[in-house]
Amino acid sequence: MSHIEQRVVDADDLKGFCVSVLKRLRVPNDEAEITADILVAADLRGLESHGVSRLPRYVKRLMNGWMRPDAKLTIKRETPVTLHLNAENSIGQVAAYKAMEQCIRKAKKSGIAFAAITNSNHFGIAGYYAMMALRNDMIGLAMSNAWPLVVPTFGAAPILGTNPIAVAVPADEHPFVLDMSTSVVPIGKMEVYQRHNKPVPVGWAIDEKGKPARDSETVMRCVYQTKRGGLLPLGGSEETAGYKGYGLALLVDILSGALPGAAYGPHVGGPLDPRPSNIGHFLGAVDVDAFTPVGEFKERVDLMIKEIKASPKAEGQDRIYIHGEKERELEEQRRRTGVPLYFKVWKDLQGIADQLNLESPLK
Amino acid sequence: MSHIEQRVVDADDLKGFCVSVLKRLRVPNDEAEITADILVAADLRGLESHGVSRLPRYVKRLMNGWMRPDAKLTIKRETPVTLHLNAENSIGQVAAYKAMEQCIRKAKKSGIAFAAITNSNHFGIAGYYAMMALRNDMIGLAMSNAWPLVVPTFGAAPILGTNPIAVAVPADEHPFVLDMSTSVVPIGKMEVYQRHNKPVPVGWAIDEKGKPARDSETVMRCVYQTKRGGLLPLGGSEETAGYKGYGLALLVDILSGALPGAAYGPHVGGPLDPRPSNIGHFLGAVDVDAFTPVGEFKERVDLMIKEIKASPKAEGQDRIYIHGEKERELEEQRRRTGVPLYFKVWKDLQGIADQLNLESPLK
Repeated sequence: MSHIEQRVVDADDLKGFCVSVLKRLRVPNDEAEITADILVAADLRGLESHGVSRLPRYVKRLMNGWMRPDAKLTIKRETPVTLHLNAENSIGQVAAYKAMEQCIRKAKKSGIAFAAITNSNHFGIAGYYAMMALRNDMIGLAMSNAWPLVVPTFGAAPILGTNPIAVAVPADEHPFVLDMSTSVVPIGKMEVYQRHNKPVPVGWAIDEKGKPARDSETVMRCVYQTKRGGLLPLGGSEETAGYKGYGLALLVDILSGALPGAAYGPHVGGPLDPRPSNIGHFLGAVDVDAFTPVGEFKERVDLMIKEIKASPKAEGQDRIYIHGEKERELEEQRRRTGVPLYFKVWKDLQGIADQLNLESPLK
Repeated sequence: MSHIEQRVVDADDLKGFCVSVLKRLRVPNDEAEITADILVAADLRGLESHGVSRLPRYVKRLMNGWMRPDAKLTIKRETPVTLHLNAENSIGQVAAYKAMEQCIRKAKKSGIAFAAITNSNHFGIAGYYAMMALRNDMIGLAMSNAWPLVVPTFGAAPILGTNPIAVAVPADEHPFVLDMSTSVVPIGKMEVYQRHNKPVPVGWAIDEKGKPARDSETVMRCVYQTKRGGLLPLGGSEETAGYKGYGLALLVDILSGALPGAAYGPHVGGPLDPRPSNIGHFLGAVDVDAFTPVGEFKERVDLMIKEIKASPKAEGQDRIYIHGEKERELEEQRRRTGVPLYFKVWKDLQGIADQLNLESPLK
């Protein structure tokens, strides 16, 4: 079996399997549904590094008590427009989903609401929470800090996370869904390059000596072992404004880490650390109608986006994409044709089924 | 006189001169003070391209009726947490300053407030408005769209502005002030390179054929004349994630342009266009205390920043900077020693004094 061979699995079957795994590990039914939906959404949208490939880690963390299946979120402070939550080491998806529901509920009444969440875990794709706002004609925001992989400008050690920012904006034809790590690339992309044995482009990461890291093994060694060198912030080097990506990463850590009082920077637990991660999130919803009639706003966004798409193309290109467009098209396709899983991921899921004595639907 | 020779002027004198110029052009006293303070703040903080070097443009626009000295802002929609303003073609600084004052006033009562402003003009440095929140232990946000200079990923024409984002976060020792254009560099940096006749680094801009533009004349021709090629979004090319900077630029245009109903993308008026610019802004204030005790928050931010600054340095570097730190140090220094003005800028200001029959303090 080649390590890049894939198996195709029906999205609903995949989700059903995740639900049964999580339930077997004492995650309540509705929370298992939430978590599974968000994991499979990542695979549907082409962000595989945040999808079911992470289930083995979740299983391990739940079984070892490093993440709690039965956590009950507690409120630390609450106003009509703000929420400070303690996730009590719950699954990140559960904490973020419930917090975003609260933000939307509050924003319906107050126009705007933000939530800062401490003591949480990896929450999957940030875009999922931002997109929850779209159905309510709201603008959604989601951020999270993450374990340290990114080197700040003029620094030499990886002490900031790839700290994603997602923003979703409603429109009739072209909702805008920006979902980006604040590094040039997320670590998942490095794993893809590792799997395909491709050289790493200059500008993505630096090695222990501060020189461009040209292979993914070097990057993995830098961030997980020697702790010198690592991923570069968006913008790359100082000359090409990497301090802006560094600033965005730090901003996410301030709002997700310092504001709720979660771990920050080098203290955030990694997926392999045998302890709770204490990750923090920052989420929000803004009701368009609190500013301007939502119908007019959506028309303006569609018009703006149509003009960008119709503008002149670079040589060799026939299409300008809007953020979220590729992912939406892929999701529609994969809902019909199934989700491709690398053989290793598929095998890992079979292993979980065996371990938990579950009937695997992934035949 | 060399074109890079400088004259040093006292900051208060410089501000006083700007106030008298604006008052002579029928700008009310308090609004002249606001505008002058924000222009000189740019020079103090080392962001000269947004400072008094722009006064000649302001003068021309006020004299030609392309910008109104006596505009009265009108409210289009208002809630306890939102404000939709029409700036009625006022000076951008006046509209943004007053809107930020309202956001802070509202956030004191409600915890959070955001303002979307239409029909405004160039507002100088975004960071100024974000920093207004600091004095109130709030997090400040400021964005603005701008005339089209930036080429989207896979595009060939400059149809997005350099659309800045500024965020200020209070702390005891190290307030964080991110103030960044969403392009690799702002157009002002290109002007500096032009003045010093320096080659433009690869990754900042592309020419009409999509190849790296290596001199500033080419970039100026691309964005103002041929309208093919231009500045690259933060991240640069597609391979180094320029689509993220493109996404941030578009987000700023959605919030500053589409939300308040201002011009957007290619329709925003440039500084030399003989018409109102119809620029839009998006500003906000978030009261830290609505989430968590502000004293504890500031301690956490200081600690986080101290750890980053104490982390290992790249070869040849002895200091890791936090966003806003260089600018704060420069401002302290220049308040003591004066503001350096390029001879051309100094000469332009003398010309304005002569034209308006004002006593120039810039001897």
